Amino acid sequence: MPSQPHNIEHLPPCITLMTDFGAGSTYVATMKGVILSICPRANIVDITHAIPPQDVWSGSLTWRDTTPWYPRDTLHVAVVDPGVGTSRAILLMEINGQRYIAPDNGLISHLAARHTPSMVRRLENPEWFLSPVSATFHGRDIMAPVAAHLAAGILAEDLGPVAEEFVLLEIPPLSREPRQITGHVEWIDSFGNVLSDISRSALPDGISEEELSIACGDLQIQGLSRTYGDEVSDQPIALWSSSSQLEIALPRGNAARAFSIARGTKVRLRW
Amino acid sequence: MPSQPHNIEHLPPCITLMTDFGAGSTYVATMKGVILSICPRANIVDITHAIPPQDVWSGSLTWRDTTPWYPRDTLHVAVVDPGVGTSRAILLMEINGQRYIAPDNGLISHLAARHTPSMVRRLENPEWFLSPVSATFHGRDIMAPVAAHLAAGILAEDLGPVAEEFVLLEIPPLSREPRQITGHVEWIDSFGNVLSDISRSALPDGISEEELSIACGDLQIQGLSRTYGDEVSDQPIALWSSSSQLEIALPRGNAARAFSIARGTKVRLRW
Amino acid sequence: MPSQPHNIEHLPPCITLMTDFGAGSTYVATMKGVILSICPRANIVDITHAIPPQDVWSGSLTWRDTTPWYPRDTLHVAVVDPGVGTSRAILLMEINGQRYIAPDNGLISHLAARHTPSMVRRLENPEWFLSPVSATFHGRDIMAPVAAHLAAGILAEDLGPVAEEFVLLEIPPLSREPRQITGHVEWIDSFGNVLSDISRSALPDGISEEELSIACGDLQIQGLSRTYGDEVSDQPIALWSSSSQLEIALPRGNAARAFSIARGTKVRLRW
Repeated sequence: MPSQPHNIEHLPPCITLMTDFGAGSTYVATMKGVILSICPRANIVDITHAIPPQDVWSGSLTWRDTTPWYPRDTLHVAVVDPGVGTSRAILLMEINGQRYIAPDNGLISHLAARHTPSMVRRLENPEWFLSPVSATFHGRDIMAPVAAHLAAGILAEDLGPVAEEFVLLEIPPLSREPRQITGHVEWIDSFGNVLSDISRSALPDGISEEELSIACGDLQIQGLSRTYGDEVSDQPIALWSSSSQLEIALPRGNAARAFSIARGTKVRLRW
Repeated sequence: MPSQPHNIEHLPPCITLMTDFGAGSTYVATMKGVILSICPRANIVDITHAIPPQDVWSGSLTWRDTTPWYPRDTLHVAVVDPGVGTSRAILLMEINGQRYIAPDNGLISHLAARHTPSMVRRLENPEWFLSPVSATFHGRDIMAPVAAHLAAGILAEDLGPVAEEFVLLEIPPLSREPRQITGHVEWIDSFGNVLSDISRSALPDGISEEELSIACGDLQIQGLSRTYGDEVSDQPIALWSSSSQLEIALPRGNAARAFSIARGTKVRLRW
Repeated sequence: MPSQPHNIEHLPPCITLMTDFGAGSTYVATMKGVILSICPRANIVDITHAIPPQDVWSGSLTWRDTTPWYPRDTLHVAVVDPGVGTSRAILLMEINGQRYIAPDNGLISHLAARHTPSMVRRLENPEWFLSPVSATFHGRDIMAPVAAHLAAGILAEDLGPVAEEFVLLEIPPLSREPRQITGHVEWIDSFGNVLSDISRSALPDGISEEELSIACGDLQIQGLSRTYGDEVSDQPIALWSSSSQLEIALPRGNAARAFSIARGTKVRLRW
């Protein structure tokens, strides 16, 4: 190994993990062992292991919605990797002050739509990998050890060359007409709340929330609520989510199930 | 920010989280990011995220059964919050040497039935909140940052005024007759074991365990077992649980399912 | 308490937990509280809590596949304990530089098949237990506190006598015939991939992977793939797993479900 600059901070470096391995997966436990063997001071946090198998879109949304809340320089590792063992690259990226390690399959798409990555490198230096590298578990053999070595203080430059190109998922744009925006259901949360890709900031200024009319599938909602708890009826409501996205909810139930709304369903906002 | 007394201990402060967000929820991951951004040394422990949605009773029982095992001064945060965004308060409470942050909806009821809170304050000082505060995710915007600031050393007095009143759930009392106590099923664990609200200490002294007779739904059990492993038959047994509560179990099966026992079912103990 | 040698390392000692309590179990949260109350610097890692109830075989495989990746001297605690409260012993074992605490029921069988334990002791000194010890939750009352005291620096010699005998599960051997090995399905992972007990090293040298023919239940596969991503068809493939075991997978699906393969199904490898 080359000489390794030591991390002289006393704070434990933070490494997060996001995978599609399923809750309770022992593959996650293996990755944590690899990380702690290299960087025993690491503070490992689970983002989630419930990404649907090989669902890069969900992974990309989850990274956008969770990782910006973490401390500067946190290392975020994602293993949602349908192409494991093929020639797809594995990347280290810096976006808005944080570091991301993932297969080159679009997992940073929703983050990159907000902040251009300031650095993208291909992980190619096997010095920082486990040896041998298996064909089916690069999370354990490449991503976990590289994250741990970075947390312990190696420099990004030691890992591999700058990548000039990388994969981004196509994110369908909002469609705008006079007095109307059409978007899509982006996410269903564990309560069955429906999150759309229409942000509060997409609306022109000065529109009152009472004059907004929302359509999604067969559902029609007039006006916006401020919060779930305002309502005493059993009617669905629309509101701005905690991430300022247009959300549809059933205050005492599961809106997605009750109204057969799925990811990709169109959402129309009129005023 | 006002000047902030520094925590000079070298031990990582412990913060626990209990929510109804569901296992693998990314909302939990967001709260952890907020906490670590404010207090990077925090040791965050998950109590559980599997509280049934909006089930304050379950949350209150879970806090009673788990949090007393934690180190003194641990900060316990619960987000089971059907009233989020309404005018319900958020409280900081001290109970038996530990600190609790939760919406004012009764989450400390079972704890408070054992130890009177020594301090209850309303979290009202926005200096320690994220800004802006959303209407739907006070776990992220108020409870997580306040817990982290407390772990980092601010004083409870800085958070808001003493609360003279707070919500407590009604806990149905045991009903006592001569040679008989009637209680209720309080909890079904993940093995299907049935936990009642009848504590060992509720019995008069000097009663032999063989003369106890237990009835619950259609089930009749004579005598108490010492542990699950004593039994070789497939019959249900009654025993004192690891928390000294009357428990009904099926040693190689799921008692609640086999005998259609649910939370609230009456349990009668005779001798 | 006797005088206690202090752990002067600054690295947080690592303690892992594996149980059959189920994801989100509050019993796990209780054990973590007990550990942190005794050793607040402990870094507690979840191996998994999704071991099927009382399934010692699964626990033993999981320990073999995960724990060797952890730092030297890690303390691994397993609570899969059908005999809790009976006279079965609880053991501390040293295997290949790591420490294991478990009921004496075979949980180290697959580890011990690879490395003979260098030390096995019975936990008998109640000085390091909680008091009183319940009859039904030795994870909380014995295993968690002993692990925490060991992490804090007590010596194994203080815990109890050397055990001359301990329980090992019977692991069925591979059956070898000319140009053929027959083994068994050992494990189904969360993707439905089928892992057998036939290791790459069980094959004679110099056999080409194209001439291998695999049979499992009704399934016949000719030749080995290098990785999941090589394949564009919807056919099942065989490959060496990330642990170098013969694996059967359906690249875009769940092989175990599609071909009705279960643990124990025979796997035949011919060449």
